[in-house]
Amino acid sequence: MAYERPNITALSAYVSGEQPADGRTIKLNTNESPYPPAPKVLEAIATITGESLRRYPPPTAAGFRAAAAQVHGLDASQVFATNAGDELLRLVLTVFTDPDKGGRGIAITEPTYSLYRVLAGIHGASVTATPLDEEFSIPSTWATTLAGSDVGVAFVVNPHAPSGRLESLDTLRGIAEALRGRGVLLIDEAYVDFAEQSALPLLTPDSGLDNVLILRTLSKGYGLAGLRFGYGLGHPDLIASLDKARDSFNTDVIAQAAAEAAIRDQADAREKWSLIVRDRALLRDALRARGFVVPETQTNFVLATVPPAGPDARSIYEDLKAAGILVRYFDQDRLRDKLRITVGTPEQNNTLLAALDRILKTEKV
Amino acid sequence: MAYERPNITALSAYVSGEQPADGRTIKLNTNESPYPPAPKVLEAIATITGESLRRYPPPTAAGFRAAAAQVHGLDASQVFATNAGDELLRLVLTVFTDPDKGGRGIAITEPTYSLYRVLAGIHGASVTATPLDEEFSIPSTWATTLAGSDVGVAFVVNPHAPSGRLESLDTLRGIAEALRGRGVLLIDEAYVDFAEQSALPLLTPDSGLDNVLILRTLSKGYGLAGLRFGYGLGHPDLIASLDKARDSFNTDVIAQAAAEAAIRDQADAREKWSLIVRDRALLRDALRARGFVVPETQTNFVLATVPPAGPDARSIYEDLKAAGILVRYFDQDRLRDKLRITVGTPEQNNTLLAALDRILKTEKV
Repeated sequence: MAYERPNITALSAYVSGEQPADGRTIKLNTNESPYPPAPKVLEAIATITGESLRRYPPPTAAGFRAAAAQVHGLDASQVFATNAGDELLRLVLTVFTDPDKGGRGIAITEPTYSLYRVLAGIHGASVTATPLDEEFSIPSTWATTLAGSDVGVAFVVNPHAPSGRLESLDTLRGIAEALRGRGVLLIDEAYVDFAEQSALPLLTPDSGLDNVLILRTLSKGYGLAGLRFGYGLGHPDLIASLDKARDSFNTDVIAQAAAEAAIRDQADAREKWSLIVRDRALLRDALRARGFVVPETQTNFVLATVPPAGPDARSIYEDLKAAGILVRYFDQDRLRDKLRITVGTPEQNNTLLAALDRILKTEKV
Repeated sequence: MAYERPNITALSAYVSGEQPADGRTIKLNTNESPYPPAPKVLEAIATITGESLRRYPPPTAAGFRAAAAQVHGLDASQVFATNAGDELLRLVLTVFTDPDKGGRGIAITEPTYSLYRVLAGIHGASVTATPLDEEFSIPSTWATTLAGSDVGVAFVVNPHAPSGRLESLDTLRGIAEALRGRGVLLIDEAYVDFAEQSALPLLTPDSGLDNVLILRTLSKGYGLAGLRFGYGLGHPDLIASLDKARDSFNTDVIAQAAAEAAIRDQADAREKWSLIVRDRALLRDALRARGFVVPETQTNFVLATVPPAGPDARSIYEDLKAAGILVRYFDQDRLRDKLRITVGTPEQNNTLLAALDRILKTEKV
């Protein structure tokens, strides 16, 4: 196209999981929560009036930020509200990396959340990709490599997608220290609500770090993928930098009210997280009993290697889809023999397992 | 800050009009509609369920786009839904101009909506600014200048802010033709709901133009500044280019429902536009009778030059503010003797006029 910048023309757009419009499909493919948001979220939405819609919203989502700061034991100046995690990722690139291969690019490990590479392509930032170790762990040499680089931002999704693996605080601290003074470490905690540990301790003053940003989202743990609300946590100077580049009123008045209600109701959220963690173990065991290899996961999904003797992963994905069950198949290196399956309700998980039994049995005959 | 790109450090952030949190201030400073959105908007919001919030939203706002296409007599492929007009402006820069002074920059006339320059600063695009003629009209030489340039996007707000003046279709066509094949003309129609004419005819196939994008917003004409919903209209190829660069699910499920309800209820919107157009004339006449110079306006605001004999514009702004009425004062060239006043309800306008009478009388004594 005549008018586009060349990097936009060259772009491979981000491909999200399928989103069927019908309400019948069992969607275990995009890591949505199987549970709706807290009732208080709908109550908050019901308080919205024509008068509040008529006016511009609070520009920095002050109410939400105060609530999030309280939940995380931080100051509101360390909280940045965004249109889902995606906006935070984009702003991090805009603010801390050079466009059009200008020097400071991004560093990622692979496989990882594929949007990082897409966003770098839109901005024009260069991408340095390092393969993860065999079990999808970060190579111990990565920090050293970063220390000698001019990387503007390193992106780490932790717990990792699509494997579900959790990296230690020490590993993350080592990466941040390697980048300190030149680059930012973005820790994407999209799935942290289902994990044993967060990187929040790296934000305390005694960590000595000023270059760590943590991404959070309400899409997974709070049952609010439809709301597009996320937030960043980090050093006030990093937040102030991002604040200069965001759209003037980047989150709307309804989303702010809903998000604030969601994060204030930690009891409701924690109850749902514990159900998902419980059912994740049941699903893992049930898949293992059927011959899948399923590593430990700290997310709301499992990455299951299909049994070697049976049909391949793509064909199981297709058969499940024909049965009205969507799971995620990635046609990329290291993932072609695997399925990423979101933990659903007990009923959904059982429906999946029954379908798998039929598929595996049929194909073996 | 060590981590920012230099252009972010150099940035002068966008300054929006004051947004007091109290409900008592009469806000005639940010061009919000004085009327709430259509009742059907609140009905649409009330239909939102936990289940619809739990899932990812329709990625391209298909329901809204179909409705907008119908209203404007276009195809849905010519409609692009965004988080307010701001997101469209940002994406236009991202997609069609070079960052870090790479060549294809933006062209603006001045004064204009100050956000264009801020967004260019964030992206790093170069800015070529041409002064408007005495009555805030676009100089007839601008098209010729653009024809010999490497401009990626020319931004024209029409009707013009802050003057309210409407440029002719011929002028806009001339600019688009001058840029054709190299650059895009973005016509910002944020205020078009209050104008006699839109640039929509430039989007028909027989216009011979493939480089015109029109910005619309629900913030002003639909009483939805709090919702952050806007849209672009243009050639399907331009829309496809923008589509590659937007966040994956850029508008949320509640906003999509509310926006679709708003644009479908043209009868409600038109009724409110006609009230505002009626009261704009009354306000204009009343200000003229008090010695203000008030040119014709096609927006929901007037740009009034204060009477030369009385207090200056800034002091009137301050006195109004002390009286609980906010209007907009711009401390910049060609605007320091003027106030931009949003048309309010009849009652708000009368309160403003009574306050002006007190202020002008007091200061003259």
